[in-house]
This record gives sequence, C-alpha cells and structure tokens, in this order.
Amino acid sequence: MLTAEIIAVGTELLMGQIVNTNAKFLAERLTGLGISVLHQTVVGDNPRRLRDAAELALSRCDVVVFTGGLGPTDDDLTKETVAELFGAELKLHQPRVDRMRAYIRGWDRSMPENNLKQAYLPAEGDGIILPNDNGTAPGCIFEKGGKTAVLLPGPPREMMPMFLNGAEPHLRKLSGAELYSRVLRIFGIGESAAAEQVDDLIKNQTNPTVAPYAKEGEVTFRITAMANSPEEGERLLAPVAERMYREFGDKIYAEGDGATMAGTVVELLRQKNKTLATAESCTGGMIGSAITSVPGASEVYGFGFITYANEAKEQILGVRRETLAAHGAVSPETAAEMAAGAKRVSGADIAVAVTGIAGPGGGTPEKPVGLVYVGLASERGVRTVKLNLSGDRERVRTRTVLNALDAVRRALL
Amino acid sequence: MLTAEIIAVGTELLMGQIVNTNAKFLAERLTGLGISVLHQTVVGDNPRRLRDAAELALSRCDVVVFTGGLGPTDDDLTKETVAELFGAELKLHQPRVDRMRAYIRGWDRSMPENNLKQAYLPAEGDGIILPNDNGTAPGCIFEKGGKTAVLLPGPPREMMPMFLNGAEPHLRKLSGAELYSRVLRIFGIGESAAAEQVDDLIKNQTNPTVAPYAKEGEVTFRITAMANSPEEGERLLAPVAERMYREFGDKIYAEGDGATMAGTVVELLRQKNKTLATAESCTGGMIGSAITSVPGASEVYGFGFITYANEAKEQILGVRRETLAAHGAVSPETAAEMAAGAKRVSGADIAVAVTGIAGPGGGTPEKPVGLVYVGLASERGVRTVKLNLSGDRERVRTRTVLNALDAVRRALL
Repeated sequence: MLTAEIIAVGTELLMGQIVNTNAKFLAERLTGLGISVLHQTVVGDNPRRLRDAAELALSRCDVVVFTGGLGPTDDDLTKETVAELFGAELKLHQPRVDRMRAYIRGWDRSMPENNLKQAYLPAEGDGIILPNDNGTAPGCIFEKGGKTAVLLPGPPREMMPMFLNGAEPHLRKLSGAELYSRVLRIFGIGESAAAEQVDDLIKNQTNPTVAPYAKEGEVTFRITAMANSPEEGERLLAPVAERMYREFGDKIYAEGDGATMAGTVVELLRQKNKTLATAESCTGGMIGSAITSVPGASEVYGFGFITYANEAKEQILGVRRETLAAHGAVSPETAAEMAAGAKRVSGADIAVAVTGIAGPGGGTPEKPVGLVYVGLASERGVRTVKLNLSGDRERVRTRTVLNALDAVRRALL
Repeated sequence: MLTAEIIAVGTELLMGQIVNTNAKFLAERLTGLGISVLHQTVVGDNPRRLRDAAELALSRCDVVVFTGGLGPTDDDLTKETVAELFGAELKLHQPRVDRMRAYIRGWDRSMPENNLKQAYLPAEGDGIILPNDNGTAPGCIFEKGGKTAVLLPGPPREMMPMFLNGAEPHLRKLSGAELYSRVLRIFGIGESAAAEQVDDLIKNQTNPTVAPYAKEGEVTFRITAMANSPEEGERLLAPVAERMYREFGDKIYAEGDGATMAGTVVELLRQKNKTLATAESCTGGMIGSAITSVPGASEVYGFGFITYANEAKEQILGVRRETLAAHGAVSPETAAEMAAGAKRVSGADIAVAVTGIAGPGGGTPEKPVGLVYVGLASERGVRTVKLNLSGDRERVRTRTVLNALDAVRRALL
C-alpha cells in the first residue's frame, strides 16, 4: 500500500488565521484511493523550512501532496523547491503565459510581471502540468525514483477541482488497491450505545472494516472494503451493511457522507407528494434554513413561521392565550397548537413546530435549559415529543432541528 | 521570541474524517502570546511515528503543544511517549481516580478499568497537571532544559477551556513579549480594494503590523502590536486604528474576532429600543436564525416570515397578486411589499425582506442566479437594494443574510 504525506504551505495557516480544510479533503480522497496517509504537515513561507519539510516527506513517504505556495509573490516557493529536489527543469511555457494574460485581462487589468513566475512549469518529461480552471497558477506532478510529488494551489476552490480532475486519476493508476465504502447515517442513538451493539464488527472485522464516528448530534458508521473492482467491493460490503440495517432499522436515515437529514426529508416529501410547513420559536428559522438549503425544496415547502414572541404565536398561528397562560410557551400544549395552527394557515399536509429553552438564560428548575417540545400535525392528528437536550445555545438549537426533521421523517415512513 | 510546534494526534484526523480546528485555535492563541508557530503536524495513533514526531518537534522548537491521545484506549499514547522523552515519572493519582469515578457515575455507569490510564500523571516536580472540567482525561505540562510540552485532550470542547484556563497563563509567563491586537470587521468592500486603500500600512508597518484577510463575505484587518503591557499595546494600536476608521468609515461594523453582523444589529436595535421583523424567501429562515443566535434577541425580535412560495407572500404578507404577475417574485416591487407587509403584520419598527434566486436552478438571462432584492421598511418609508451575488447556493444565501443585516444596521445608524 502506498504511503503519503500532505504538506500545506502558508503562513496564514501556521498562524491560525484559517482552518486547514485542504488537508481534510486530500486525506479523505487519498484514503479512498487506498493510499495510507501517514503524516500531515503545515509549514510557513520560509525557504529553508519548506525545503526541509519536503525532503523529510519524500524520504519517508511514496507520495507527497503540497498545497499552497504556487502564487506570484516572492513568498511562493513550492514549485522551485520541489523541482530542485527532483532535479527537474522548469521552463517558461508560452501558451500558459498567453492564457494567463487572457484570464487577467478579463478583469480589465494588465498582468503584473511577477505573475510570469506561475508560467514556469516542468519541462516535457520532467513532470506533468495540471491545468487550473479557477485561477492563474497551474499545478504539477513530479515523479522520479518511485517518489511522486503533487503540487496544488492553496485556495480550496482552485485546489479541489484540480485534484479531482488532474491528480486523482494519476494517483488511482499508481495505487494498487482501492477502497470502497458505505457510510451509514444514524440518528436517535448515541455513539457509545451504537458502538456497543456492533462491538463484534468493530473489533473483529478486517475486510471490510467498520468504524463509528460521532457527527454533531448523530452517529456515522463507515464500512470500508479493500478490493480490486467496484463489483468486488460491493460484494464485500453488502453482508456487513445488511447486519447494520438489522441492528439499527429505521434509525439509519440515509447513506453517504453528503446525505443530510433535511435532504432525506425533502426527498421523502417529494416521493409521497406531501407538503410541509414549519413553526419555529427557539430555532428561529434554522429548520426552514435546513429545508431550503436542499435544491428543489420549493416543491414541498412554502410556508415557515418564526414565532419568536408569544404575541406572534397567538397572532399568526392562533395559539390560544389561555394555553400560553396556563402552560407557558414551552409546553406540549403550545407545541401542539403551533403545529396545528401552521398546518391550518398554510394548508400544508404536515406541519412541525418547536418551542423550547435554548439558553444560556431562560431556564428554571421546572423548565431547564435544553427542554424542547416538538409538535407534529398531520392528517392523522397532532402529537408532541419532549426533548431534554444538553450543550450550549447553538448545540440545543442544532439538535432541535435534527429531532424535528427526524419526527417529520418518521411520520412519512 | 519563543518558537512552537503543534502536534495533533489522531488517525481520524490523518484520514481526513474531521477538520483540524484544534490546530487553528492553538496557532491563533500562541501567535497572540508572541510565540512564533513554525510547524504544525498531524500523526496517527502509531507509537513509533508519534515518538519520532515528538522528538523532532522538541529538537527544533521551544514549545510543543499536543492534542489528542490522552484517552483510555491502547491507542492513546501521548502522555507515555512525551514523559519518556522528558525522563519524567508518571504516577497514579488517587484524587484523580476518585474524581473520574464520580464523573462517570453521573452517567449511571461503572468506570471501565482502562480509564485508570488517564489517572497516571506527572509526579510532583516532574510536571504540572491541567484539570479537565469537561471530560475524564486531565492534561499536563512537562518542562525541562528549556523545552516545554503541553498535552491537551483531542475533543475541542475539552481542549479549548483547558488551554485557556490552564496552559495559556503558564505560556504567557514564559513568553517575553506579548502581542496586542485590534480586529476591525468590515463589510461592503472587497479584500483587494480594501488592501489597496491601506497598502502603505500593510507594506511599511512593523509595529504594529496590519494584515488583511478575507472572511466569508467580509474583510477583516488585524492590527497587531508587540508591547510589554496592555497600556503600551493600546497606545501603539490607537493611531493605526484611527487611520483605518478614517479610510473605511461605517464600513467597519464591529471590532473583535467574536463580533458578528447579527450581534451588532441586535445590539443597535436594543440601544435604540427598536424591534425588527423579517420576511424571507430565498434565505428560508437564515436571517431569523442569525438574529436568534444572539442571546437576548427576544428583546428586539418577535416575528419572522418564511414566505418561500408566492402563495405565502400573498396570504401572509399581503403582497399583491398583480405585483407578482407584473414583476415576478424576484423584483424590487415584491421585496418592497414583503417588507411593508411584514412591518404591518408584526407591528415592528423595522422590517427587512429578501427575495432572490439562490441557484443552482431558477436563473434566466434577465434574472440570473445571484440576483437578490432586499426590501427595508421603516418609519421613514420603504426602500430596496439590488444585489448581484456570485457563488453557489449557500454562498448566495449567506451573502444575502449579511447584506440584509447590513441594510438594517445602516438604517439604524
């Protein structure tokens, strides 16, 4: 199995001004190619330390992926440094110069001469040029004596397409085996309890492996098989996935890293030709935001009510003043009337409402911070769910959104 | 100036399952203490590679901060590895054992015996113990021969308080100089244009330094002075900050890393004793979410309308059918009627409305993706702003929220 190191170049990373999302992206992609990531490093724009880091990485790994340091300024040194280590020649590529001039002219500017630096690229035979469709700095690949260096730009919107289109196919050929995964997304059980239920799989499985990890408010299981073809990968994954479905049933709400609870709910609503309305107090619009982040949500969602004040609950949703007086805003009675009111006013098939105490203030011994009621109104009637959530304001609100959407999901299933 | 390296330990980081937010946090804090961060490294739960990384770091930096690897499993090796490098002894601390048992008993569970590992801590004189108020693994500091190692847990909600309360005071004493910063938060001008305006400051300033960096949809300038006291720091920072206020005026909406546009708006509303209502189409609740994420928002915000469907714009806000037919949902006319309707229905002093095309679908040559209208209704009347935003769906929505809140801010000033 090939080994890899990721080196991110940039003083703003080193000083903590930005988070290293590039490393996460590259580590995930490399791992998926069956390449074992052994090291991740961040260095600043310092020639000596960059060279030392590159040399060390090339001595201890087969593949080294660099991001950053490909720009036009004097601080940008990655290409020159790595070319020297590989004994490769950099030549001025006229087509690249012309292309850069055209790209910058598109901004009504003339090209600063130091941009020419970016057009010095590996000579034919010394390396592979990776085109940049989102910026002026091309990347490149150097290869010699069993070592591969991939040089990518720093900005994520330039780096990611270049890696996926230019570098990954090359690395896929290099890597002997490939990893195939199924990612099960689970809501309604904690990580420890879930891991206990399939402890034998986690401990004993070698191919595929089963690994749990906690995401905000939910649990994810990644089942990973090493195989020589997608078909073989699927054959290895299927029985393990079936076991997981037997264990967790409908707590598994979706598969895939990109899946979301909101996306799952919108798709279910679409399939069943149902519409949804929302009535939010403590979440203040977060449920509506989540639903509308899904392209095509307009087919299933039209009305959302943020009734942050009691007055709004009464005036907009028809929650009765007597209910608020007798039970308070945070009560199953109020949640039920909010949901029924949202359904009635909007004409939607289903309405979900939330009312709770997100904190930090507002809690009492009877009604502590984290107490939230979810109301759900459908053709079958109105029901409520009581939640006791822990954590800070944002955590209570985020968990409430997941719980509310999950209640809609279960009502649809 | 002291030098530092940050070593994050954890295979899930290495494999790209999570982003290394710990490194960003620590790098930012260390830089603020006047400690120069030269290296950041990620290693997996591998004894040999962890030891090599620790040894290399201690050879090339004065301070090494570790996160992760303090847990109860066999993979958790940071403490044992670093203690060995320092020739320090780890002893079982009975008070710590008792405290751990009590903490875990709070979850109605008995303590697995391997948790005892976490109670092996530096013996008196060999190191300093850092209490963990949010988990079972204490951290510690080893110090010898001019080298300092700080060991912190992996989970951010345990690591950050432990660093701030336990490690930072110790490192502050160690570091000779200290950095003092003012962070100016700017909206309404791009990073390049802003940097050009104060190019002389960025290029020539040595103490304080001025550094721009782009945040999502806004620009931040960090002015940093090295000084021997807070008072001296303030004296150095003031004239540079004044120059920035002369250059950017009310585009500077707040100071401080933690400031937000929503927080600024809520505070202004509070100061002026005004209430706000929101009417959202394409943002689907994101403006309401932003406002309600600010503790105390209930004093100034009570009503939010998510009128995602045209039917909802008509029924809830009273937008006229003729307006929608003649101009469409995405028009200044509709934005104005949405804002006026939200103000009327809610009785708020100010109402802000947004209607636009977030994408990826829905665009036409006349009304492309990214076209958004903001409507603002106040006692002074109703006005609209036209935006042409670029980027994907989430970026258009996020930028719309900032623009809408900034419109409210300017109306209040």
